[in-house]
Amino acid sequence: MTNSHALKALITLTTDFGDGSPYVAAMKGVILSVNPDVCLLDLSHRIPPQDIRHAAFFLASALPYFPPHVLHVIVVDPGVGTERAVLYVELGGHRLLVPDNGCWTEMARGVAQPPTVIRLAERRYWRQEVSATFHGRDIFAPVAGHLSLGLDPRQLGPAVNEWVRLGTPAPTHGPDRLAGKVVFVDDFGNLVTNIPGKAFTAWHDRTVRITVAGHEVLRRVRTYGEAEPGSVVALVSSSGTLEIAVAHGSAAVRLGAHVGAPVEVQLIS
Amino acid sequence: MTNSHALKALITLTTDFGDGSPYVAAMKGVILSVNPDVCLLDLSHRIPPQDIRHAAFFLASALPYFPPHVLHVIVVDPGVGTERAVLYVELGGHRLLVPDNGCWTEMARGVAQPPTVIRLAERRYWRQEVSATFHGRDIFAPVAGHLSLGLDPRQLGPAVNEWVRLGTPAPTHGPDRLAGKVVFVDDFGNLVTNIPGKAFTAWHDRTVRITVAGHEVLRRVRTYGEAEPGSVVALVSSSGTLEIAVAHGSAAVRLGAHVGAPVEVQLIS
Amino acid sequence: MTNSHALKALITLTTDFGDGSPYVAAMKGVILSVNPDVCLLDLSHRIPPQDIRHAAFFLASALPYFPPHVLHVIVVDPGVGTERAVLYVELGGHRLLVPDNGCWTEMARGVAQPPTVIRLAERRYWRQEVSATFHGRDIFAPVAGHLSLGLDPRQLGPAVNEWVRLGTPAPTHGPDRLAGKVVFVDDFGNLVTNIPGKAFTAWHDRTVRITVAGHEVLRRVRTYGEAEPGSVVALVSSSGTLEIAVAHGSAAVRLGAHVGAPVEVQLIS
Repeated sequence: MTNSHALKALITLTTDFGDGSPYVAAMKGVILSVNPDVCLLDLSHRIPPQDIRHAAFFLASALPYFPPHVLHVIVVDPGVGTERAVLYVELGGHRLLVPDNGCWTEMARGVAQPPTVIRLAERRYWRQEVSATFHGRDIFAPVAGHLSLGLDPRQLGPAVNEWVRLGTPAPTHGPDRLAGKVVFVDDFGNLVTNIPGKAFTAWHDRTVRITVAGHEVLRRVRTYGEAEPGSVVALVSSSGTLEIAVAHGSAAVRLGAHVGAPVEVQLIS
Repeated sequence: MTNSHALKALITLTTDFGDGSPYVAAMKGVILSVNPDVCLLDLSHRIPPQDIRHAAFFLASALPYFPPHVLHVIVVDPGVGTERAVLYVELGGHRLLVPDNGCWTEMARGVAQPPTVIRLAERRYWRQEVSATFHGRDIFAPVAGHLSLGLDPRQLGPAVNEWVRLGTPAPTHGPDRLAGKVVFVDDFGNLVTNIPGKAFTAWHDRTVRITVAGHEVLRRVRTYGEAEPGSVVALVSSSGTLEIAVAHGSAAVRLGAHVGAPVEVQLIS
Repeated sequence: MTNSHALKALITLTTDFGDGSPYVAAMKGVILSVNPDVCLLDLSHRIPPQDIRHAAFFLASALPYFPPHVLHVIVVDPGVGTERAVLYVELGGHRLLVPDNGCWTEMARGVAQPPTVIRLAERRYWRQEVSATFHGRDIFAPVAGHLSLGLDPRQLGPAVNEWVRLGTPAPTHGPDRLAGKVVFVDDFGNLVTNIPGKAFTAWHDRTVRITVAGHEVLRRVRTYGEAEPGSVVALVSSSGTLEIAVAHGSAAVRLGAHVGAPVEVQLIS
């Protein structure tokens, strides 16, 4: 679908400020003060405080679905006010403003072309006074406003080749064993793992023993609706990885499992 | 108010995914990928998980206030991945995309004209790969995008005359007794019932005994501000039904009452 | 930044209805029914129920960052249905619709020009039936819609010179002692006080004893990242006042401190 007219500028916001935060509202005001015509779209303000790993999963799960003209502003920023940089990133057609703490590098996996990364340095696109504790309002927001007006990102600062990368644990794939971890717990309490769904479904006609956080999962299903309400099941998540769920319930609560909990699939016969 | 120019396309989103969910963000991305110019408006992502009845009350309370050009996407969908259909519905001038689980049929009460209902079947308007667990992203979102671009809904699939209807408990209205249930608890903890406000106010100059979940409610008021802070009162809700409230407090907490709790108004003299 | 074309109309919403509330959705529908082209922007629906003081802090923290063309609708309204007025306010270039309960008067401090205040009286801009419990839907929303279409605010009712003012506690500033209160707790659990940051930093090279709710705060920092994770620190907040924080933690939980807790800075040497 192509549009002959210019697309409206759109900025998404993802923070750990909380849904009721005046800080989010202040950021919206600053962006609109620079570009009163931009559209603002909340993605989430409930990233757990300072949880870069959660932000990384969130971004990798959501941003790839967006079209390229959108600018994504992410403020999960435990290093605010210190020497950590603020980066403008172009990655696989997506445009981001992020703190340099690795929250976006998970997204780069599987994208062939290397990202363009610019380190924000030009203070004339920032608010005049930059506080030590709120760069979301004082740097991210005004820069996002200017970018949405068409500013060339190269005006923001120098291109760089070094940035913080977030180490992410890789799953183990043996001939008769898959081992990984819970990497995300969604609001239903479903446990999303880093074990590739394809490796799991390849054993669909074999007998396996699935364990998560020491509990055995007795049933494999294709979708939640196939499971008896309350039963613990294994399936392939919408992200394409192994997921442990409780139909009409919370697997996180039922199994007492958190991010980082070990998950194993053992081939029995 | 008429507008000579074309109205901007607007899509609202109501889900049980949770406010911090990457699933909501992914849906937004997919819609914008189909129609980069559409406006997105969150209604709620806090429908309790899989709670079709809560969704039904929410929709019946909110959607009638919207103008007809808006498209409402509702994903409260315990049957995802099973044989349940996805429906496009036109009802009293409103346009909805809903799972066929009855969440919308409460809205049809009191609308004279029968709804137009289309069962989604044309996969060319869906994402190429449809997961078993996330039709919000893979079916609802792309179809919503295409509808917002002006697609004729009849292209989506066949019109149907059968759909799941949600049975809703009717209140009892005797000569000296009204009996019903709590059907919704709002974020203030107010208990909204299904007892018609008019039946209740018709007895405004009579002595009545009002009970909810076994507790007696001693005072009738017109609005919260008339009540002594902390007192339990009965009034007519903004939906036009009997409501039990605690001024500056939560009736749900105070009376330990939930959705389904019995409510009775007994005429004494 | 000036724009030669007309700016799109934008309305922000701040309420205490809760994020999952059908009441917010109904307001959005009513506004869009009056002006289908207006853009809606949620600021917060998590003002604690009926907490006018929290709303006042929220508005004073956020609204000054917005450009003047935006209309801000605030519904934190314990007096709904009573004789309290609904006001249209112009203040320092900002436009608000507020209940007359003082939630906005904190913003007026430091604005030289007196506000223009109009008391809503013209019922033809309201919904035809006005409920006793939901003026957000029945008065605020339709009036906001009409204002966004360009209605002259003087059509709404008479200008007034009297309105409810919220008394706010002033901090004490002695030669060797600053005393104030916690006025806001953000979602991180940071304790924002009403003690001016400048008065605090003026003593940056002196020895001080800082206490909050009876606990001593041992370290002063410039930003969170300078603090050892878990340590309690004092710094200047992004609002320019003294703030007590726990790096990577919640000062509110750690110190058991709430809004109203006493805060003191005592000069020792």
